[in-house]
Amino acid sequence: MRATTIHAERDIRVSDVADPTIDKPTDAIVRVVKGCICGSDLWPYRGENDITPGATIGHECIGVVEEVGSDVRDFKAGDFVVVPFDHCDNTCAHCLAGAQSACVNFGMTQSGQAEFAHVGQADGSLLTTHGMPDESMMPHLLALSDVMPTGWHAAASARVKPGDSVVVVGDGAVGLCGVLAAVTMGAEKVIIMSRHESRQKIATAFGATHVVAERGKEGAARVKEITGGVGADAVLECVGTGDSMKTAFVVARPGAMVGFVGVPHGVELPVSRMFAKNVGLAGGMAPVRRYLPELLELVTSGQIEPGLVFDSVLPLDQVADGYRAMDERQSIKVMIEP
Amino acid sequence: MRATTIHAERDIRVSDVADPTIDKPTDAIVRVVKGCICGSDLWPYRGENDITPGATIGHECIGVVEEVGSDVRDFKAGDFVVVPFDHCDNTCAHCLAGAQSACVNFGMTQSGQAEFAHVGQADGSLLTTHGMPDESMMPHLLALSDVMPTGWHAAASARVKPGDSVVVVGDGAVGLCGVLAAVTMGAEKVIIMSRHESRQKIATAFGATHVVAERGKEGAARVKEITGGVGADAVLECVGTGDSMKTAFVVARPGAMVGFVGVPHGVELPVSRMFAKNVGLAGGMAPVRRYLPELLELVTSGQIEPGLVFDSVLPLDQVADGYRAMDERQSIKVMIEP
Repeated sequence: MRATTIHAERDIRVSDVADPTIDKPTDAIVRVVKGCICGSDLWPYRGENDITPGATIGHECIGVVEEVGSDVRDFKAGDFVVVPFDHCDNTCAHCLAGAQSACVNFGMTQSGQAEFAHVGQADGSLLTTHGMPDESMMPHLLALSDVMPTGWHAAASARVKPGDSVVVVGDGAVGLCGVLAAVTMGAEKVIIMSRHESRQKIATAFGATHVVAERGKEGAARVKEITGGVGADAVLECVGTGDSMKTAFVVARPGAMVGFVGVPHGVELPVSRMFAKNVGLAGGMAPVRRYLPELLELVTSGQIEPGLVFDSVLPLDQVADGYRAMDERQSIKVMIEP
Repeated sequence: MRATTIHAERDIRVSDVADPTIDKPTDAIVRVVKGCICGSDLWPYRGENDITPGATIGHECIGVVEEVGSDVRDFKAGDFVVVPFDHCDNTCAHCLAGAQSACVNFGMTQSGQAEFAHVGQADGSLLTTHGMPDESMMPHLLALSDVMPTGWHAAASARVKPGDSVVVVGDGAVGLCGVLAAVTMGAEKVIIMSRHESRQKIATAFGATHVVAERGKEGAARVKEITGGVGADAVLECVGTGDSMKTAFVVARPGAMVGFVGVPHGVELPVSRMFAKNVGLAGGMAPVRRYLPELLELVTSGQIEPGLVFDSVLPLDQVADGYRAMDERQSIKVMIEP
């Protein structure tokens, strides 16, 4: 099949690779209808993660079931499905406790920017849309494979509740979905820290009530002003750098929670500050399947439109241009059509 | 008045110092009936915190109101009160959010091991027992000024819920109160990590279901065995060292919360592990007043007996012996009678 592969820093290609196969009776193969590029794909792209030259890359997709293993009960060829980037059996002790991203049968989509994707634990992982969705619905469904549940996980980990003042650190696609999550959970004030007009617009469309362009101390002062001198009840850290984590703790009120979903790179946690201010931290890799039924309902009923984070669509052949555009922040998030 | 003072590392004396006075109309002076030594008093005692030579030390006490400022409405001379170590107005935005230890009018008891103690924000801070308690009730009430609410805060921050498997790291008085808190909150398995028989006995009296004497990898393996291979739903970190924090994260199951109340000394948080396992951290200085009404009810109704952590009683004149005994772990917690 044709698939996106990475060969070195900033060297993304479309290559012919072996088709994925049913290796276990619980597997499924999905024909990718839409895939996309994740902010976390940029870590290896920028050479900040190790690279296996020639490996496929991409873990977000939706599509049609092509084939299932002999133990798969709930899906059959032809079903349209959302593929969570993290696969889980949804029955082990960790899954039952809502920690599906630590499933004992954990796996990840390895070729979401490709013609076909392998899915482990199909019955536990997948969710069907019960029929082929309209083209207009595709971006919103695609967002459910990672970016929207990840923003949701940030908000859930920060324990956003109705009436809260929430700060979102990071105006990437995950941060924008964090805004949408906080608004959907009933937050009264949702403040996004952003200096980019195109991203501010989407944040506002998602219901952000305030945009703070300032950074560092000035940014924290603005948040304090907006929250009546108190600080944020909940903070969503959606970047993963030392600076963004620092900002998150500075804007948090005493007793607040920081929900973090950006893969930490060079982060040192301020344990003394956390103790003195009683500011907690929770989060990590999103347990997508935990949130998927609720989010699919919100999408299909038209209550949320997370697909607005896609500001660019490219055919698979031009996937390298998509990486370049996201790396240079010319695009927020790029959809790929195989 | 006669008060405990610290002059240098391991130099505790009883000195004549000025009586505390009503400095603000919201203040009260309490005649100390019982005071005690806190594990955190051992940090300066051991020279690990800065010392102001001649300063009073001690922040836990119960006693009788001696005098109140002109704005104090709810208390009068003669009332028997529990004095939270952290004083708060209980009306500011932080207090209303349950973060009383970050009150905008925050203060701390400065002379709990003395004849008199100054209390700021008396109306917000104090709770009365409505009459002079029996002598047998005194230890349990004294425990409410710090150690029991601190153990409770560890459990609340770790979000202990009925049916949980809980690990308590630290068998000091706070850890033992953490056991009592977790049991009271309905935890099914409460595992204390302890190698000291006298402490194990109190933990068991408080309802601990398992004692793990092993440390490091062996300790973690024992916890895994006890929890059916899963790990702890909630972990109470009641020490504050790098080792104890490491243990807390190692025994936590994916998706768990660690509640921490030991003042961090040399702690580096494992942010990548937290992310990968979705293990959160919350806690800090206990907002005593938040928990005090509920805990006072539990004590006066006889449902909990946190005063069992006191295994030694000394007159004020011998307070230095009390520090020595706790430093050498010959005593768990020492009550002081002025």
